[in-house]
Amino acid sequence: MSPIQRLKPIQRLKSITSHLQQTSKMKLLYPTSLYIDAKSLEGFSVELHPYDVTVPIPESLIDAEFLVTWANKATNLRDAASRMKNLRWIQSLAAGPNDVLGAGFDASRIAITTGSGLHDETVAEHTLGLLLNAARRFYEMRDYQNRGEWPAHLGGPQPDRAPGTFRTLKGANITIWGFGNIAKSLSPVLTALGANVTGVARSTGVRNGFEVVAEDRLQEILPKTDALVMILPGSASTNGALNAERLALLPSHAWVVNVGRGTSVDEDALLAALEKGSIGGAALDVFSVEPLPKESKLYAAPNLILSPHAAGGRPRGAEALIAFNLRRQLAGQELKNII
Amino acid sequence: MSPIQRLKPIQRLKSITSHLQQTSKMKLLYPTSLYIDAKSLEGFSVELHPYDVTVPIPESLIDAEFLVTWANKATNLRDAASRMKNLRWIQSLAAGPNDVLGAGFDASRIAITTGSGLHDETVAEHTLGLLLNAARRFYEMRDYQNRGEWPAHLGGPQPDRAPGTFRTLKGANITIWGFGNIAKSLSPVLTALGANVTGVARSTGVRNGFEVVAEDRLQEILPKTDALVMILPGSASTNGALNAERLALLPSHAWVVNVGRGTSVDEDALLAALEKGSIGGAALDVFSVEPLPKESKLYAAPNLILSPHAAGGRPRGAEALIAFNLRRQLAGQELKNII
Repeated sequence: MSPIQRLKPIQRLKSITSHLQQTSKMKLLYPTSLYIDAKSLEGFSVELHPYDVTVPIPESLIDAEFLVTWANKATNLRDAASRMKNLRWIQSLAAGPNDVLGAGFDASRIAITTGSGLHDETVAEHTLGLLLNAARRFYEMRDYQNRGEWPAHLGGPQPDRAPGTFRTLKGANITIWGFGNIAKSLSPVLTALGANVTGVARSTGVRNGFEVVAEDRLQEILPKTDALVMILPGSASTNGALNAERLALLPSHAWVVNVGRGTSVDEDALLAALEKGSIGGAALDVFSVEPLPKESKLYAAPNLILSPHAAGGRPRGAEALIAFNLRRQLAGQELKNII
Repeated sequence: MSPIQRLKPIQRLKSITSHLQQTSKMKLLYPTSLYIDAKSLEGFSVELHPYDVTVPIPESLIDAEFLVTWANKATNLRDAASRMKNLRWIQSLAAGPNDVLGAGFDASRIAITTGSGLHDETVAEHTLGLLLNAARRFYEMRDYQNRGEWPAHLGGPQPDRAPGTFRTLKGANITIWGFGNIAKSLSPVLTALGANVTGVARSTGVRNGFEVVAEDRLQEILPKTDALVMILPGSASTNGALNAERLALLPSHAWVVNVGRGTSVDEDALLAALEKGSIGGAALDVFSVEPLPKESKLYAAPNLILSPHAAGGRPRGAEALIAFNLRRQLAGQELKNII
C-alpha cells in the first residue's frame, strides 16, 4: 500500500491537490543559446526549463508564464507570440528588444524587459579597442604586414600629441554622443588614459563626473573633437543624426566610432567624408544594413575600420537580472528595464 | 665713445672679465628631433642651445658641458664623443641609451642618464591596444574587410568568457614579465577592465598593489596565463627568455605580447608555436632584427600581429626630467636615471 493509499479519503484528496499544485508551479523558460547558470536561479517557487531558441517551444512548455529570450529565431518568437497564452513577462537579454517587439506579443498583457546593462562592459571594451586601433593605426600596420612590408612610418621616433592628429588618447577630446550606461562604463577608462570626455545627450548636467551637454551644443563641440563615439539607440529621432552637415564640423583628423546603431550615421555622407579625407577615419561596428552588403563601398573606404556588430553580443550578469526581475514579478513589483 | 671706453682702465678690465664670464656660461644642447619647450628650461645659469641630431655639432657649441639626446644619428654621436672635450653629462630621452653607450663617450668623466619613465604612458597605451586587438580580433576582421567579406563568425551573439579562450580582458589572467614602470602604468587599466594581473620580476612582493613573483614561478604561472606581456629590457640575461620550453607551458589559447626587446623572445620557437597553433597568437612590437627582414616568416605567421616598434618613441615630460637633472647637476647632487 502506498503512503497515499494509507490515508483517509479526505486526507487523500488534500494530498493529491497539494501534489497537483506542486506540479503546476509557474514556469520560466530560459534559452540554451547562451550559458545560463540555472542553479543560481533556484529558490523561487517557479519551474525552470531550458528551451531551444531555434525551434518552436515544445507543447509541454507552452503554458509557461515567463520567457527569457536571447538570439531567438524570428520564427521561434512569432510562434511563441501566437501559442503562449499564459505568458505574462518576457525578459530579453538584448540591449534593445526589437526582435521581441516585432514578433506580435500582446503588449497589453505581457511585460517586456530588456537586457540593458548586460552589455555595458563588453561594448565599452570593444569601443576602447576601436579607439586604440584608430589612434595606434593597427589596421594600417596590418595592411603592411599582409604585403610583407615593415610600416616604418608608423614606428620609431614620433611626435607626441602633435596638433591636428589623433595618435593617442592622452589629451584627446573624446565626445560621446548618447551618454547612457555604456558611456558610463567607458568614460573612466578613457579618463585614466588621459582623454577629456564630454557627453552629448538629452538629459544634461554632470553625470558620473562627466559633463553631458545637449545636442544643440554639437556645433560648438564637434570642431574641438578628436574622436566622436556614437552610442545612440535606433529610433526615428536618431535616424541620420550624424549627417553631412555635422560631419563637416569635425576636424580633418577626427575619427568617428559607431557602436550604437548603424542608422544613426548617414553612411553616404560618411563615405564621402572618408574618400575626400575631410575626417581622419571611422571605426564602425554597426551598419544600416547588416551584414554589410558585398557591394558596399564602405569595405574599401580609406581609414575605415569594419567590425561585424561584435561590440556586444555577450550578456554579462544575465542570471542576476533574471533573478532580480523574477522576484519582483512574483512580488507584484515594478520590473527593471521595463519598456 | 662707448660706455666701456668711458671707464677707467681697471674698471674696463673688470667689466670685460664680467662680460666674458657672462658669455661663457655653461651650455646645454637640446635636440631639435622632438619638440622641446625650451622656455620651460629657463631660470638656470646655463645657456640653452638647440642642435640638429643628424649632423656634427657645430664648432660654436662643441664646448658644451651638457647634452640632451633623442634619435641622434650614430655619426652625430660618434663625432660628439670625439670632439666634446668639456662634456660632463648626457641626458638621453630614450628608455635605453644603447646608442649613447655605443658611441664611445668617456664614461669615467661623463654622467649618462636615461629617459626611463618618459615612455611609460605611451608604451602602456600601445600594449593595451595590442591586447584588445588580440582579444577582439581586429586583425582578423581587417583581413575579411580587405577581401570585401563580412566576418560573421566574429560578430553577433557570442559566448562570454568561455573556458580556453582569450576574447575579453574581463577575467583574463594577464602575466606581465618585467614589472617596472611601464607595467605600473599599464596594470591599473587592465584591472579596471576586469583582468587579473600578475607580475614576474627579479624584485618580488606586492608592488603598486600587484603581486610580483620571481621567474622560478613561471612554471606554475604560465599554464594559467591567458596573455603574457613581455616588457623585459635587452641584456645578456634576458636573451631568449621566452624559449620553446616556456612557450610550451602556455595554454593553446594564450597570447604573447612583446613590447620590451625582441631578443627576449626566441623567434624561431615562437614561429613554430604559431604555426602549429600551440599558442593563441602573438602581438610583437619588437624584433631581434629591426626592421623585420623581408624574408622573415613572421610576416605571414598565423595570428601574428606586427607593430613596427611603435609602442614608445614619443618621450612625454622630457622638459621636467631635463630641468630636474640639470638642477641636480648644477648643485652637485645625484642624478635621476643614472646608469
